[in-house]
Amino acid sequence: MKRAGQSKKTGMRVGIVGATGMVGQELIHVLEKKRFPVGSLACFSSGAGRKSVRFRGRTLPAPAPTPAALESCGLVFFVSSDEVSLRFAPRLAKKGVWVIDDSAAFRLDPTVPLVIPEVNAHALKPGSKLIAGPNCTMAPIAVAGAPLHRAAGMTAVRIASYQAVSGAGKAALGEFYRHVRSQGRRLDAAGRADVLTPLPAVSLPRSIAFNVIPHVGSFDAAGHSGEELKVAAELRKVWSSRRLAVSVTAVRVPVIRGHALSAWFTTRRPLTPARARALLKKAPGLTLSPPSAYPTPLDAAGRDAVFAGRVRRGIGPNELALWIVADNLLKGAALNSVQIAEELLRRRWLEAR
Amino acid sequence: MKRAGQSKKTGMRVGIVGATGMVGQELIHVLEKKRFPVGSLACFSSGAGRKSVRFRGRTLPAPAPTPAALESCGLVFFVSSDEVSLRFAPRLAKKGVWVIDDSAAFRLDPTVPLVIPEVNAHALKPGSKLIAGPNCTMAPIAVAGAPLHRAAGMTAVRIASYQAVSGAGKAALGEFYRHVRSQGRRLDAAGRADVLTPLPAVSLPRSIAFNVIPHVGSFDAAGHSGEELKVAAELRKVWSSRRLAVSVTAVRVPVIRGHALSAWFTTRRPLTPARARALLKKAPGLTLSPPSAYPTPLDAAGRDAVFAGRVRRGIGPNELALWIVADNLLKGAALNSVQIAEELLRRRWLEAR
Repeated sequence: MKRAGQSKKTGMRVGIVGATGMVGQELIHVLEKKRFPVGSLACFSSGAGRKSVRFRGRTLPAPAPTPAALESCGLVFFVSSDEVSLRFAPRLAKKGVWVIDDSAAFRLDPTVPLVIPEVNAHALKPGSKLIAGPNCTMAPIAVAGAPLHRAAGMTAVRIASYQAVSGAGKAALGEFYRHVRSQGRRLDAAGRADVLTPLPAVSLPRSIAFNVIPHVGSFDAAGHSGEELKVAAELRKVWSSRRLAVSVTAVRVPVIRGHALSAWFTTRRPLTPARARALLKKAPGLTLSPPSAYPTPLDAAGRDAVFAGRVRRGIGPNELALWIVADNLLKGAALNSVQIAEELLRRRWLEAR
Repeated sequence: MKRAGQSKKTGMRVGIVGATGMVGQELIHVLEKKRFPVGSLACFSSGAGRKSVRFRGRTLPAPAPTPAALESCGLVFFVSSDEVSLRFAPRLAKKGVWVIDDSAAFRLDPTVPLVIPEVNAHALKPGSKLIAGPNCTMAPIAVAGAPLHRAAGMTAVRIASYQAVSGAGKAALGEFYRHVRSQGRRLDAAGRADVLTPLPAVSLPRSIAFNVIPHVGSFDAAGHSGEELKVAAELRKVWSSRRLAVSVTAVRVPVIRGHALSAWFTTRRPLTPARARALLKKAPGLTLSPPSAYPTPLDAAGRDAVFAGRVRRGIGPNELALWIVADNLLKGAALNSVQIAEELLRRRWLEAR
C-alpha cells in the first residue's frame, strides 16, 4: 500500500478530487477535526476558480487531476462531478487505490458497495476498492429508518424533503445570497405581507429566495425528479430491500445547510411510537429529540449526527411519522465519506502508514 | 335585512372585525377588487396599534367592536382571534346578521357550516347565519383533492406542508424580516455554506430565517401539532368524510406568502395520473400546471386560484402524489370569506341592497 509521496511515519497520502468545491472544503475540515491519519494531502480541482486550499495551516495547490498523481495516493476521495468520477475513479481503484466516491456515478452499480457505515458497513468488501457514498437526502432517511426496518420490516416510505441550497452547489448558494440581499432590501419594514417579483434564476430552476421549489434534478416521463428517483433506488440498495415502495417529493427550500425530511415509514409489523423511540435512542449516528422538541436545520448545521424527532403515529398501527434533519454537507456527503475511510482503517484494509 | 347606517342604493353595510390585521387588509383589498356591493364599511380592530384603514381611497376609523355597532351591519367578516369571534359572533348571528368567521372558534361546531364554496357550498343553510371559513393549510388540499375524492373515494391523505410566515401573523412576519436583514448581512459573499447562529425568536417558536420549523400550534400528548389536528378534522368535515385517515406534518418555511403542500391522496378505486389530471383541469378554483411545470409560492402570492402540479403515481395504483400551492391570505383566508358572501348573494339569502 506504500506509494511515492507518502510520509512513512505519520500517515498515508490522501487525495481529494474536487477539493476546492463546497463538499471538498468540508471534507478537509472533517479530516482535520477527526485527526484522520493524513501523511500528505494531494488536492485536485477540475473546475475553474480557486486553485489552492488550506490544510492544517498550510496552503496546498489544487491542480487538475492526472492518473499518475492520483495513483500516488493510498486513498482518494472524489467530491466532484459524476463526469470526473467516471473518468478517473474505476481505473484508479483497479490500480489498487481505495476510492470513496461521493458522486452519483456508481451508486447503483451492483459491483460497487453503496455505504453508510452505521447502516450497512457489511457491504464493504476487501476486493471492492471503489466505494460509493449516498445521496445527501437519502442518507438521513437510511440512518433514522434503519432500526425501524430491522425491528418491524419496512414496506413503504413516503418522504417530503426540505433541502438546503448548499446541496445545489456553490453557484446556487451565491445566487441565493444575492437574491436574499436584493429582495431583503425591499421588504416592508411595517411587516406587510409583500408580494415579491421573482428575480431571474440561473443556477437553480427558479429563484429560491423566499420561495420553495419542488424541482431537484430533471423530471422523467412519469413526473419524478432525478433526486426523487435517486432517493428511492439508493434506499432500496442500502437497506437491501429490493421490493421497498418509496415515494418522494424533493423540494428545495431557502435554507443554507441542513436537509430536513418529513417521513412516513410503513412497516410489516405494527410499531408503537414508544417502541420506535426506544429503538431510535440506541441507533448509532442518531440523536433523538425529547418528545416535545424537534431538530431544525439551524440546529443540525455544522454537526455530525442525524437528528430525529416528532415520532408519532402515521396512518394505521403499521405507520410512523418522523421528522429528520442532517447537515447535507457533512453526514450527507463529506463526513460519511470519511466515516467509510475510518471503517477501512478499523478493518486494517487501509493502513494508516 | 335593512339596518341603520346601510346605504339604500349602493349596497349593504359590511363589517370587518380585525380590519387592521394581515387578513383584514387583504379582505378590504378583495372587496375592492371584486367590486363587492359594499354600501358602507364598518371596520373594527380589537388589538393595539393602527386604528384606521383605507377603503376606496378613504380613511376609515377602526374602533373596538361593540354589539350595537356590529348589529348595524347586514354582514360581518371576522378575521381576528378565536377569542374575539367567540365573544361577538354567535350573538350577532342570532340577531339575524350574516357572520363569516375566519377564526378556528366554530369550524368544528356541528351546527356551523364550514365552507369552501368550490367544494361544499351545499353546506350553506338559510338558517345558519354563522358560517366558518377553513384553516389556510386545509383549504388548498380540500380544493385540489375534492375532484379525486368524488371520482375515486378518498380513504387516506398524507400531507407535508411548507407554510408561509404570514400565516403566523404580523408580528411573526416582522420578526422574520428583521432576522433576514440581520443574518443577510453576515452571509459570506464568496458563497460559502455559512453555519448561522440562530437569533432569539419571540413571535415564532424558533428563528425562521434560513430555517424550517415543524411546529405550528402546540403539541398534544400524541405529538401532533394544533395545525395538524385542524387540517385533519376540517378536511373530514368539508369532504363529509368522517372516516378519512389523515396524517399531516405542518412545517413553517421562510416564505412570505403562499402555503405549499406535498400531498399523497389514497383512493378506494385506482386512479391514473392522466385521469386525475383530466379531473383537475375541470376543477373549479384550481389552476393545473402543465406536466413538466409546477407552481411555487412566489407564483401563487397575490393570486386567487389554488395551483396544483406534479401529478404522479404515489405508492400503488390507488395513490397519487400532488404538489399544491395557494396564497394563504387569499384562498386560505380573505378571498374564501368573500366567496362565501358572494354565494349568499347569488342565492339571494343576502340582499345587495
